[in-house]
Amino acid sequence: MQSESLALHTDKYQINMMYAHWVHGTHLRKAVFEAYFRKLPFGNGYAVFAGLERIAKYVEHLRFTEEDLSYLMEQEENYDPAFIELLRNFQFRGTILSMQEGDLCFPNEPLIRVEGTILETQLIETALLNFMNYQTLIATKASRIKLVADKDVLLEFGTRRAQEADAAVWGSRAAYIAGFDATSNLLAGKMFDIPTKGTHAHSWVQTFGSEQEAFEVFAKALPDQVSLLVDTYDTLSSGIPHAIRTAELLEKMGKRLGSIRIDSGDLAYQSIQARQLLDEAGLSYVKIVASNDLDENTVFNLKAQGAKIDTWGIGTQLITAADQPALGGVYKLVERELDGEMAPTIKISGNPEKVTSPGKKDVLRIVSKESGKAIADYICLPHEQLAREGEKLRLFDPVHPYMKKTVSNYEAVSMLRPIFIDGERVYSLPGLQEIRQHHREQLSMFWPEYLRKLNPEIYRVNLSQEAWELKQRMIEEYMSQLED
Amino acid sequence: MQSESLALHTDKYQINMMYAHWVHGTHLRKAVFEAYFRKLPFGNGYAVFAGLERIAKYVEHLRFTEEDLSYLMEQEENYDPAFIELLRNFQFRGTILSMQEGDLCFPNEPLIRVEGTILETQLIETALLNFMNYQTLIATKASRIKLVADKDVLLEFGTRRAQEADAAVWGSRAAYIAGFDATSNLLAGKMFDIPTKGTHAHSWVQTFGSEQEAFEVFAKALPDQVSLLVDTYDTLSSGIPHAIRTAELLEKMGKRLGSIRIDSGDLAYQSIQARQLLDEAGLSYVKIVASNDLDENTVFNLKAQGAKIDTWGIGTQLITAADQPALGGVYKLVERELDGEMAPTIKISGNPEKVTSPGKKDVLRIVSKESGKAIADYICLPHEQLAREGEKLRLFDPVHPYMKKTVSNYEAVSMLRPIFIDGERVYSLPGLQEIRQHHREQLSMFWPEYLRKLNPEIYRVNLSQEAWELKQRMIEEYMSQLED
Repeated sequence: MQSESLALHTDKYQINMMYAHWVHGTHLRKAVFEAYFRKLPFGNGYAVFAGLERIAKYVEHLRFTEEDLSYLMEQEENYDPAFIELLRNFQFRGTILSMQEGDLCFPNEPLIRVEGTILETQLIETALLNFMNYQTLIATKASRIKLVADKDVLLEFGTRRAQEADAAVWGSRAAYIAGFDATSNLLAGKMFDIPTKGTHAHSWVQTFGSEQEAFEVFAKALPDQVSLLVDTYDTLSSGIPHAIRTAELLEKMGKRLGSIRIDSGDLAYQSIQARQLLDEAGLSYVKIVASNDLDENTVFNLKAQGAKIDTWGIGTQLITAADQPALGGVYKLVERELDGEMAPTIKISGNPEKVTSPGKKDVLRIVSKESGKAIADYICLPHEQLAREGEKLRLFDPVHPYMKKTVSNYEAVSMLRPIFIDGERVYSLPGLQEIRQHHREQLSMFWPEYLRKLNPEIYRVNLSQEAWELKQRMIEEYMSQLED
Repeated sequence: MQSESLALHTDKYQINMMYAHWVHGTHLRKAVFEAYFRKLPFGNGYAVFAGLERIAKYVEHLRFTEEDLSYLMEQEENYDPAFIELLRNFQFRGTILSMQEGDLCFPNEPLIRVEGTILETQLIETALLNFMNYQTLIATKASRIKLVADKDVLLEFGTRRAQEADAAVWGSRAAYIAGFDATSNLLAGKMFDIPTKGTHAHSWVQTFGSEQEAFEVFAKALPDQVSLLVDTYDTLSSGIPHAIRTAELLEKMGKRLGSIRIDSGDLAYQSIQARQLLDEAGLSYVKIVASNDLDENTVFNLKAQGAKIDTWGIGTQLITAADQPALGGVYKLVERELDGEMAPTIKISGNPEKVTSPGKKDVLRIVSKESGKAIADYICLPHEQLAREGEKLRLFDPVHPYMKKTVSNYEAVSMLRPIFIDGERVYSLPGLQEIRQHHREQLSMFWPEYLRKLNPEIYRVNLSQEAWELKQRMIEEYMSQLED
């Protein structure tokens, strides 16, 4: 889906709200929205922020085509032609601050802050969330797999099971950010310069009279270091012996077999046996690739069982984030212009976790100068100087305020960087290698307790005293209004 | 993602296999592949086939651009320039048969059959599965929700949680096929002519000084029958009273409030209370819309509890098929040319359910002439005439052959229709309304026992005697080869 034609990739209610504001003459009032999620996926201790490049290009290219406008004119809402004319000249002229791709991020802190007219801030909500939610979800899933796989090679193999084409390519990108080494998807390779890898399918073996012939033809046709799939008939009694014979043949030609791939059966048992057979044949250089519905849990358990696997092909479970296929990112109004002044706003809810934190906010990552490790994320209002000036800081949990901690000798790193200012992109989008490197550096700033796969320690995300008081005050106000 | 540039939306191993065949001179040999899934999703009794239009357009537009070719030339495989030249002139010239969108389909039966040169049949595997898997998955999930919602209105609201943009629009389309009434996504509306619906967000209410003001402005700006979101502060003590006042105001203007929407809290309790308040105010015509992470199970339970909900907004759970986010569709070689003759081929596997059924096959739906209901799907080889001629048929389960049944007085409906013959599209793609209607008709051909949500009766999918014997013989052959 090209970014040029995405103006209508939005919910109809955005257009209806824009229209009603326009009819009422309030569409140019200012608003501030913040995008965040409330709960970490997969029981993980952190998420990996991703999707910014996609969002930035979407915002830059956001225009209504004539076709889009004709479509809108046919709608039952019967929009005024002058409104359609306004859309014809629409460009995003607002300001966006965002975390950087590869940053670790946490629940209930703004990942993206959008400031502008109600018109423009409302229009982009749907696509922004769609892009942020998916890539952040997949980068987080990939990061869990990377943690477990450690220095093993990780290949993204999920295209055929992805939720349509965009998911395949943007999911590949997200996985690469979080430490995957290559993808099978050539379009993702072309679009983002991700290394691509491929072996062959069972059908390759089936098109020949024998497995031996199939292996030899393949290994001869392709350059050095091919990978042979050994489980078309029987891994240990057919595939491996034929692969060994092929490797010996290649050696005579001055080439080497790169790896064998096992795609079914008991991967622990088979890889251990395969390793032994290969080693006995003097082929200790031949790597073993495994695939078949793998994720961080199966990889972890296979390694614990002593499986001899060098490279993991990860498909369905990663590309769909199968154990939790959506990140529930939301986009909430925190300030808006009322009677010519910007004022904080709150959304109350029957579900307490859905009450919003009012006011435009910054995210400061409090990093110990001693250890270089992150201690907490501190959410404060833009004018607050305490943390920025390195003053002694009293942190407390916004839900359980008795959970207190005092910190000093820290650096407060501002996590929201300006991306657009008044419609102008001021942030130079880093290359994918740079993002990947940035992610590695970010990971190294966290104690392993926060990063472990199972029951991680909960990283502190705290509101400043002032932001917390503002929230309590506004809740009180609305509650007393309701009682009236 | 436009269909024009999707030649590289494939796994690298397809290109590598194509290349190795080309080097070996076997790339123009004929092959027959069948696409099918092994297991129904969600414990459902059937799946709803979808994705054909997407696949047909992909196949028709399948060309390598110069950019694609340059990218391939940079790959480490160092493809021969003559091979790149072959790709430059590539067009799909094969034959495709397929089920029709909206058809009910079942495990282990071919949904799509592809015949052509190895080159072209191999290239399209990845994208074909990607498209078939996703739309069939979502149509099936939507069909479950439709079954439970019955005559209530169903709105697809999932875009912000979809797995990127393609999933949002193609998922909307799949949901519409299976009986949804509208989508919030305007791009899906524009691309496929699906009706679009939208209410307003909490942010709309928050941008005004009071909820009452917000409701009035919205209702006045938009045409008749607007929907008001009533849970920004408190549904029963604030939202509903304000909505009632707005409805009364609208009546004076000769307009009517269409509906209220509840998006949080206990939807059963609140909808019952809301219905009562509305009725007491003489607003029995105002409908109640509910949303908030709904799926077939929550809808079923809310209805069982007597919730007064007329319209259901369904998001995350549908658009990601959250309880099983991938359909494991596969694409397997069943026949290939060897020594100038077409011959069946089999893939053996350590996992018995992964053993393929050899030979090119047809799917006949055996429909009772008496009841008009489907009795079984009968998979036979193309030359077999028994069922086609309406002869007495002995059906038996391919895994448990003692499960037998004899049928006569039936019609055998051929489920695989020609879509492309030698590269020419011979099938006129039906409009979405027609597909939706076709799906409704197909549903009516099945006894409710097969359609129920929980523990449905298993519909028979049987191999013909000859197809079954071919499979047993080939398994035997390979097994005895392995023992040698």
